[in-house]
Amino acid sequence: MHTIHELQNLVGSEIEKEIETLKFKNPTNLYSPIAYALSKGGKRFRPLMVLLSYQLFKSEVEKAIPAAMAIEVFHNFTLLHDDIMDKAEMRRGSLTVHKKYDENTAILSGDAMSILAYNYFLNYDNIELSKMLVAFSQTAIEVCEGQQLDMDFESRLDVTIPEYIKMITLKTAVLLACSFKIGAIAANAPMSSADLLYSFGLNLGIAFQLQDDLLDVFSDQNKFGKKIGGDIIANKKTFLLLKALELANEKQKSAILSLISNNENDNDTKIRLMTDIYNELEIKKITNENISRYYENALSFVEKIDINQNLKLHLTEVADMIMNRDH
Amino acid sequence: MHTIHELQNLVGSEIEKEIETLKFKNPTNLYSPIAYALSKGGKRFRPLMVLLSYQLFKSEVEKAIPAAMAIEVFHNFTLLHDDIMDKAEMRRGSLTVHKKYDENTAILSGDAMSILAYNYFLNYDNIELSKMLVAFSQTAIEVCEGQQLDMDFESRLDVTIPEYIKMITLKTAVLLACSFKIGAIAANAPMSSADLLYSFGLNLGIAFQLQDDLLDVFSDQNKFGKKIGGDIIANKKTFLLLKALELANEKQKSAILSLISNNENDNDTKIRLMTDIYNELEIKKITNENISRYYENALSFVEKIDINQNLKLHLTEVADMIMNRDH
Repeated sequence: MHTIHELQNLVGSEIEKEIETLKFKNPTNLYSPIAYALSKGGKRFRPLMVLLSYQLFKSEVEKAIPAAMAIEVFHNFTLLHDDIMDKAEMRRGSLTVHKKYDENTAILSGDAMSILAYNYFLNYDNIELSKMLVAFSQTAIEVCEGQQLDMDFESRLDVTIPEYIKMITLKTAVLLACSFKIGAIAANAPMSSADLLYSFGLNLGIAFQLQDDLLDVFSDQNKFGKKIGGDIIANKKTFLLLKALELANEKQKSAILSLISNNENDNDTKIRLMTDIYNELEIKKITNENISRYYENALSFVEKIDINQNLKLHLTEVADMIMNRDH
Repeated sequence: MHTIHELQNLVGSEIEKEIETLKFKNPTNLYSPIAYALSKGGKRFRPLMVLLSYQLFKSEVEKAIPAAMAIEVFHNFTLLHDDIMDKAEMRRGSLTVHKKYDENTAILSGDAMSILAYNYFLNYDNIELSKMLVAFSQTAIEVCEGQQLDMDFESRLDVTIPEYIKMITLKTAVLLACSFKIGAIAANAPMSSADLLYSFGLNLGIAFQLQDDLLDVFSDQNKFGKKIGGDIIANKKTFLLLKALELANEKQKSAILSLISNNENDNDTKIRLMTDIYNELEIKKITNENISRYYENALSFVEKIDINQNLKLHLTEVADMIMNRDH
């Protein structure tokens, strides 16, 4: 049984190996941007979840590595194309692929990554392959749907909280959920356990995204990697903003809408004014309640999985790890 | 046994059904551009090849339809993203997806199409699925490599004929080859036959692309769908241009390079001057010889397939159909 730390090291070294292969593969203009994207790291939570989930049922964790690679390469493909769509210049402290190279390179290398993700699954036997692809393909198309909803929301002011939860479920949570499920499938676990792990991951993923929204406004600048208030400046339809719009009285509502629609305030003032409204409406407390609800929900699925209590601790440990970020 | 015409109708009606489903699927901003792209038709050769190949071994051709859809959707995905990269405004007489909608839509809908292509294969049993995906995934990544080589060639003047043949093999021929192979796999044909059909399709695909290059310059404007000389105007590295550069004497070579590098001539003059050089170097004859060589090569693989002589006629008929375009 490997510790989480050991699994993280395994994930890291496997990705590094893959990067070295891709870096020199021909045509290099196609593959070296892929190596670049993968080399920028990030938290690499998803491949870790694949291995961790596998290990609940079987010990020779190396067997889960191709599936872990598939998920990580797919995730990075979505980031790469999202960054083009968002015109983002930086990712993980480095230039985004379309800025370092160009947009055509980013489109085509991204396309290749999505195909490579499928290719990793070809390492598995027919039956596992089939089960994995059913799970993965469903998830992959849902991630595209989530990205579309996110773009659709940009031009809307009437997004409801359930619509928002659906969007983050598709855009963020399903891939985390799928990571757990695919690890279980690779270990030939009962499908009932794989499905429980999926539900665990799904709720954890929603809690994770809600916390991401919260940390953008309410976190310690020194510990938080990004600039505080980025979502407010960008008028992003976060859980906080949508909840505030839902709860606001007429005066607060017109204050919010005016902050969103005109640019007469400098960024710091805009952040301060919006945060004041959030405080009046107790948005931090409400968001935390929602995070806790999804988090507890996630843990309730862990209870139901037919594995011994010691193994369940690995899941709660990793859930803690994902949630206990800079706050 | 269906005639080619019947199979074409079947392909058409199946694609129309799929378009109707996609048109109204949510989120519509993701799926309706896919329906739009598929509705523009094109020759739909590739799905036809899947069914035709299936029919060499089994009769209930409906079973090959998901595989045919996969290939067609994947092909249209590549066109969609290629059009963004080429900044093409028109395709098949209509606006390209990124012009009718916008670039972000075209990127994301294209991504979804590549995932949907894989999803169609999930209709097959484990063993077929596995074999199909091995063939398809290899092809899919090669198509990306081919597109990259094509983009790489834009900034090079020293592209050799073998390099060019490799590029069109990857960009164009492998998907035609894969269409034949996957049809055979769907029919549970011996892998030796599937591989011979692949080689048939590969050589046919190269012949097809060389003829495409030729028709751009030497064809009857009334019959040819596009404007004659488009490749010359765009300085495209076609077989004709590369062969001319290879065979040219110093004077001809500098004339070609000057036509490519400066824009002092109007388009018609540029086309006329380049065509004159092609004529001096007998480029039409040489290209036709190469087309015939690949075409004959394609047919030689048909001879080796272990099916009866009558069935082979279907393959030669379809090869004729692909090659006997407007000339």
